[in-house]
Amino acid sequence: MQFNFITLFPDKIESYFQSGIPGKAKNNGFIDINTIHLRDFAGNKHQKVDDTIYGGGPGMLLQVGPVYRALESLGDKKGLVVLMSPSGKLFDQKLAKELYASSDCFTFISGYYEGVDHRVTEHLIDREVAIGNYVISSGDLASLVVADCISRLVPGFLGKEASLEEESHNEEEELEYPQFTKPYEFMGWTVPDVLVNGNHEEIRKWRQNNRKTRNHS
Amino acid sequence: MQFNFITLFPDKIESYFQSGIPGKAKNNGFIDINTIHLRDFAGNKHQKVDDTIYGGGPGMLLQVGPVYRALESLGDKKGLVVLMSPSGKLFDQKLAKELYASSDCFTFISGYYEGVDHRVTEHLIDREVAIGNYVISSGDLASLVVADCISRLVPGFLGKEASLEEESHNEEEELEYPQFTKPYEFMGWTVPDVLVNGNHEEIRKWRQNNRKTRNHS
Repeated sequence: MQFNFITLFPDKIESYFQSGIPGKAKNNGFIDINTIHLRDFAGNKHQKVDDTIYGGGPGMLLQVGPVYRALESLGDKKGLVVLMSPSGKLFDQKLAKELYASSDCFTFISGYYEGVDHRVTEHLIDREVAIGNYVISSGDLASLVVADCISRLVPGFLGKEASLEEESHNEEEELEYPQFTKPYEFMGWTVPDVLVNGNHEEIRKWRQNNRKTRNHS
Repeated sequence: MQFNFITLFPDKIESYFQSGIPGKAKNNGFIDINTIHLRDFAGNKHQKVDDTIYGGGPGMLLQVGPVYRALESLGDKKGLVVLMSPSGKLFDQKLAKELYASSDCFTFISGYYEGVDHRVTEHLIDREVAIGNYVISSGDLASLVVADCISRLVPGFLGKEASLEEESHNEEEELEYPQFTKPYEFMGWTVPDVLVNGNHEEIRKWRQNNRKTRNHS
């Protein structure tokens, strides 16, 4: 699985894939990371990639030219082009699976400032995706969230595929039961006895009865 | 605004606040970042902070002890303690405002592996928050998303407060209109004439008529 990131902050992207599960996935060849520094495609000596908004309004927009040239630099290796934007389709586990099934290569464009020149959205991308109903400072975190979520679907990524099967956010949207690990007692707080008595049928029932469903209240 | 991050990967957190808008906000004193390395509170020479799950199941859980001691190390400076977890309350702009209004100090606990010993959830935290209906490898991205979103609400953080007012995800959940910046023409793609003719009333109408509402289809 190939991930290209068109970004103003390649260091932030690379840092994320330097350790932990994402680092392991990269080192074990499950994913391949390529950062493209948008300023390299500014086309001017000041490496300026943004400008003011036509018709007025606060803030700046990313210009279409640098994004176009950054994408061109990837040639036929850009795969599915995904713009991270608060007006995009809301990302969820279902969309992650759909994206995973649709390509083995993705190019994420991180939005910044007030957003991206609309010609990027109209002409240069395949999908526009939002990671939630909230605003963050840059699309970098959003790109990482989507890449991380998709890469977890690569067989072998998690080591044990069983882990993927049992965890939250499967299609039925059921959530996990409370889980406990050692020690049995901490600060007087103990693990429910049913979980330590070794009766698998009772454990199964307890977990079924204690599944937590999302509480939006 | 103070943000503490209890994490296995302090470098990923720090990298995020080293440049861009988050970096500026930190350097200008709008936010203060403190990372707490969970392994420093492992309480064993191997710095092990996870163990297998009582009652069986794949994967490992973060143990309650290290989290407890990491929180204790903050004394009365832990503020509101937020666990990032897929079974938490779904984060949105409304919750961001609620959290922002409730404290000027937050401690984020990043979950990993299969999750966190349930005694953390029961006894040690104030809020449990999920950034979306999807699973990612670690809570670090989630902590950063929530911290970033809350910090944007600090007056002065964005430079121009107007920018905050006009952007997407305000309470009415209306989304932005298409925006364009220079050049006027690129690859034959031009900016809509109404936006360059200087008639403010027409611009206002065009924008109103072209507001995009989220498309879940």
